Amino acid sequence: MTTHLDASLSRLFDPRSIAIVGASATPGKIGAMPVTLLRQYGYAGRIVPINPRAGEIQGLPAFAGLSAVDDAIDLAILAVPAVHAAQALAQARPGQIAGAVIFTSGFSETGDAGRAQQAALTQAARERGIRLLGPNCLGFMNVRKHVYATFSPAPANGAVAPGGIGMVSQSGAFGAYAYSMARERGLGLSHWISTGNEADIDVADCIAWLADDADTRVIMAYMEGCRDGDKLRAAFASARAAGKPVVVTKIGRTQAGAQAAASHTAALAGDDAVYDALFRQYGVLRARTIEEFFNLGYALDTWKQPPRGNRLGIFTISGGVGALMADEAADAGLVLPEPAADAQARLLAQVPFASGRNPVDVTGQAVSEPGVLLSTAQDMLSDGRYDALAVFLAAAGSSEKLWPTFENFARQLQASRPDVPLAICALFPPARRRELEQLGCLVFADPSAAVRTIASLAGLAHERTDDAGRPASEAPASQGQTLLPSYNEVQAMALLREAGLPATPCTLVGDADGAAAAAAADIDAPVVLKIVSADIVHKSDVGGVKLKLSGEAAVRQAHASILASVRQHAPQARVDGVLVAPMAPAGVECIAGIHDDPVFGPVVMFGLGGVFVEVLKDVSFRLAPFGHGEALAMIREIKGYAVLRGARGAPPCDLDALAEALVRLSRLADAQRGRLKSLEINPLLALPHGALALDAVVIPASPAG
Amino acid sequence: MTTHLDASLSRLFDPRSIAIVGASATPGKIGAMPVTLLRQYGYAGRIVPINPRAGEIQGLPAFAGLSAVDDAIDLAILAVPAVHAAQALAQARPGQIAGAVIFTSGFSETGDAGRAQQAALTQAARERGIRLLGPNCLGFMNVRKHVYATFSPAPANGAVAPGGIGMVSQSGAFGAYAYSMARERGLGLSHWISTGNEADIDVADCIAWLADDADTRVIMAYMEGCRDGDKLRAAFASARAAGKPVVVTKIGRTQAGAQAAASHTAALAGDDAVYDALFRQYGVLRARTIEEFFNLGYALDTWKQPPRGNRLGIFTISGGVGALMADEAADAGLVLPEPAADAQARLLAQVPFASGRNPVDVTGQAVSEPGVLLSTAQDMLSDGRYDALAVFLAAAGSSEKLWPTFENFARQLQASRPDVPLAICALFPPARRRELEQLGCLVFADPSAAVRTIASLAGLAHERTDDAGRPASEAPASQGQTLLPSYNEVQAMALLREAGLPATPCTLVGDADGAAAAAAADIDAPVVLKIVSADIVHKSDVGGVKLKLSGEAAVRQAHASILASVRQHAPQARVDGVLVAPMAPAGVECIAGIHDDPVFGPVVMFGLGGVFVEVLKDVSFRLAPFGHGEALAMIREIKGYAVLRGARGAPPCDLDALAEALVRLSRLADAQRGRLKSLEINPLLALPHGALALDAVVIPASPAG
Repeated sequence: MTTHLDASLSRLFDPRSIAIVGASATPGKIGAMPVTLLRQYGYAGRIVPINPRAGEIQGLPAFAGLSAVDDAIDLAILAVPAVHAAQALAQARPGQIAGAVIFTSGFSETGDAGRAQQAALTQAARERGIRLLGPNCLGFMNVRKHVYATFSPAPANGAVAPGGIGMVSQSGAFGAYAYSMARERGLGLSHWISTGNEADIDVADCIAWLADDADTRVIMAYMEGCRDGDKLRAAFASARAAGKPVVVTKIGRTQAGAQAAASHTAALAGDDAVYDALFRQYGVLRARTIEEFFNLGYALDTWKQPPRGNRLGIFTISGGVGALMADEAADAGLVLPEPAADAQARLLAQVPFASGRNPVDVTGQAVSEPGVLLSTAQDMLSDGRYDALAVFLAAAGSSEKLWPTFENFARQLQASRPDVPLAICALFPPARRRELEQLGCLVFADPSAAVRTIASLAGLAHERTDDAGRPASEAPASQGQTLLPSYNEVQAMALLREAGLPATPCTLVGDADGAAAAAAADIDAPVVLKIVSADIVHKSDVGGVKLKLSGEAAVRQAHASILASVRQHAPQARVDGVLVAPMAPAGVECIAGIHDDPVFGPVVMFGLGGVFVEVLKDVSFRLAPFGHGEALAMIREIKGYAVLRGARGAPPCDLDALAEALVRLSRLADAQRGRLKSLEINPLLALPHGALALDAVVIPASPAG
Repeated sequence: MTTHLDASLSRLFDPRSIAIVGASATPGKIGAMPVTLLRQYGYAGRIVPINPRAGEIQGLPAFAGLSAVDDAIDLAILAVPAVHAAQALAQARPGQIAGAVIFTSGFSETGDAGRAQQAALTQAARERGIRLLGPNCLGFMNVRKHVYATFSPAPANGAVAPGGIGMVSQSGAFGAYAYSMARERGLGLSHWISTGNEADIDVADCIAWLADDADTRVIMAYMEGCRDGDKLRAAFASARAAGKPVVVTKIGRTQAGAQAAASHTAALAGDDAVYDALFRQYGVLRARTIEEFFNLGYALDTWKQPPRGNRLGIFTISGGVGALMADEAADAGLVLPEPAADAQARLLAQVPFASGRNPVDVTGQAVSEPGVLLSTAQDMLSDGRYDALAVFLAAAGSSEKLWPTFENFARQLQASRPDVPLAICALFPPARRRELEQLGCLVFADPSAAVRTIASLAGLAHERTDDAGRPASEAPASQGQTLLPSYNEVQAMALLREAGLPATPCTLVGDADGAAAAAAADIDAPVVLKIVSADIVHKSDVGGVKLKLSGEAAVRQAHASILASVRQHAPQARVDGVLVAPMAPAGVECIAGIHDDPVFGPVVMFGLGGVFVEVLKDVSFRLAPFGHGEALAMIREIKGYAVLRGARGAPPCDLDALAEALVRLSRLADAQRGRLKSLEINPLLALPHGALALDAVVIPASPAG
């Protein structure tokens, strides 16, 4: 794991002096572009062109090499071929250079030779205390300080406005496109960073640094994967602690996308479902599309605060579009409380054919009565029953004649209820749109996009749970400890019980006397007997299970029958004994488990049994460990959640007990970090009171790791 | 049902003369706007202002009333208060006026008095053979002929281009917004129609008329509901027959949306799931959002033909964004075949770090080698393995320097493979975007939107089945026939059997001898006995079911036991007898049914039993009758489809037999139109070979209707 050095990154990302190694006077050349942009946009620090021919480049005195520069340099930009990169850095004196950006490709992305070159480069940098961005990247920009350490053509077509969004991308092409999109959509950036091959600085380092950066309020990241799950988790935790929302687009949601991503970035791995779990766990907003990525960034950047809950007010001059917005709201999990009865009455007194419920439809008539527009909206918001307001103004929005009405409407609403985020949907001319945005309003052409965006941001408040868990890096290291032994079913259940999970009591017995004694301990309750053998997977198929046994005679007979049947049908099987357990009560069969993700470590899974898991793949995941609120979110997330709430006439299950079982499972996973390959409880019964693990399979990590 | 008169609508929508009743000289007045717009945009026909004060209006000679005009008038625009509307029409001589557009509100939307006024207006129109558009509508525009029979302010801000999209909206506000959106997005319209209260002409009439209109290639409709389901079905059938795709936005998808819609348009009804079934059945593309509505309209209008299947080629200069597009494609049901091996090899020979698979990533390097860009794409398309191509050009797309490369790329691709629809994703300046569109390319800023749009259109080809059924209006009328009798379970099964459905043989017996005889008919097979009584819903609860009975003695004993138990537990129940049936084979339990929709008549439902229908509401619908292909689509549509294909180690079910059962059920529903309230087969067993109805409940229509 790369050590996280805030200060070195700060010198790199906010440099007072920049050397361009391979600086060129030829316009359009990769070594010319940073010099041109730095001068064009007025970078205030020192610009030091480095070129073997020295002389003057773009009017600045040039040096033959880094060794020829006496002073310390905060940032060195390397625009030289891959074969010369390590050599160029080697010219620097230890401590002279804080950070370097390497544009050129031809490193690890190209095969073994490139990998060796990258290793040499990284080694040269590490020896001199230089942090590396790249290689094979488009560099970065510090927008406020006019640092253009990039050869992306995007800023040449126009610079983005300075603003509060820190943007980081593992892909240069995506990053350049996102830069252009941000400019088109009028979003302001603090920093724009492309991480390329991530020989040293990776996307997690950038997120963590942006979380501490005073100029950054919102972080937008494009990801293809990561190698160090703990560091990424820690970065998200930092952003959360700093109160800075993170929007992520990560490729590979589907099998087709994951395949495409794998052929693109072989080095980056990890199961997408685990990333998804991580994002949920840390309140990271995952955008499925570039459009959504920007809608979320736009909202987080424009609004002073996101909605504090999921109660949406819809205000329209068209009942039909109001219903369309209500459809979208319902899909996205927002609720639509009605305005107070007297507020509704006041509207209907003024506009008889209006609809006072939510969506509130003041009708087209109200457009000609600006007072009604504003007073109705203020009436809706007066008693704090909405967390956000979405307004649809139809074609009237494009009317210059009505602009003063709408501008006043937005201004007054923002002034009277600055705590209620406002989105206005209409086709405003660009300049008008920007005026509204400067008031703190969002403007959308598509009302459904407005509703979806509100819903995603409402989730930030909604899904914030008590305890998302702490990164593994803070956990006691258990690697290197003794490996776990192999476990039979009874031992697996004992492991659960020791971890505080409710597991059905079961006893391993060697003979019929033992079975009878164990059964007798469960007075009145019938018992089940099962063969215990690592060699027998399907116990019923070999006559290894007997259910509902009452009384000593029945137990003894069942014991004998099981052993005889197993001897006949599976003569080679090594038998540990026979398990005696009470018959299970009636409940909903769930599945819970742990598996060890190569990137993120232990991950906890939860789902319902039967078709839900087998046909619908209806499961949820979280990185271990986590707290009760997160466990409840995990339970609520599955499609079959209704079954647990008591569908089909059944009593509701004890969700708190189920959640607590998952919390304890996550702690067990964390405590056994590196020692468990997988653990599956199947079934985990959800009961009206309590929860109960009936069976479990534990597979320890293999000695090879 | 309104009679469908093509010719009268054609005179209305393509008028050679227009009278404006209530014409005004005061700018901005509702009676001034049409005169102003007709003159401003150069309407070539005769404009006849009507105003009691006669004289001259906007430079045209005015008449005191319609009676003062000697000639026939194709279109009369009524811009007079509701109370004067019927009176104004009454001035017309029979046959003088072909159609009228009534702008004013204050009719049925306002209550009883308004409804009476609307009835008078409709009566006056009908007596004089006048077709009515409105009242309470924004009117219509015939864009090519510059007919502006509207008081919408939208065209005053700039007219849309003439084009092939016919647009019809039940909501004026949505319509006006859509008009503005079309203008912003550069879509060309043939007609724009707002139907308002639909006293005569409704959205179905407009769709049917646009299906016949030579200027219209694509129909875009906004709907809140309809009163005459048969007419709407016939309209969609006409559009399909004419090869004109229809895009619909209909509100009320969710409960929240339906509630909002209901409070907005009380008169319009119908279950949204049934509309959805209708749309699927006729290949109508349903857009969930305004954005999607326009993406679909844009694609259908721009492409010479939609994709002929679901095989997408993705071509990018960024592997990451390619993966993002692959994710979206997988979600949307598109497949991504690889290019031919030699095509891949040729690319890799030219660009070693490219990816030749699909997504094909030529990398940013290829941007500087225009030849590679074009030859790679042409190579991909050369052997007909793709139904559409989506291209992502990243930020390079905005580069003016690269424009000739991209323009040539698009032009050559369109020329060499005009049959493969092409979408290019980049941030082109508006003028450049329009140039590409004129070549027949789509241009998107968001690559995911491009992929989603392609997927929706691919569905047009994909989902087109052999037989979507014919509208009910062409079915033999069965209304007025004798009502069906009440049915017990045995009679219900007989009804299914007569309709050609595979129903388990069952016999109603009166005594133990009968039971023994019926059971004996099933040699070797065990039987089941069940009480048959309309008064007993839960048969098992009263001991009314006995399973797995073999041999005469067991059958006789079970018969006696059932009767005794029912006498004891349900002494009041009227008993029809006892049913004898063979035990069912093992299969997947499905549910199929019919219900009578108030708007659309008989609708067939299909789903899997158990949690799928009870918890997940996982069912599909179609309007009866329909053919085999449509039935298969209905089966494939449910989430639990994998179960029928043989999940969990079970053999796959006989989908053809299941589909055939649904086809026959749909024919039964059609034949009994108006006579069945509902019918439910539960379970309908899907077997490895065949299908089998085990139980059915039939509820005839009640005499009240």
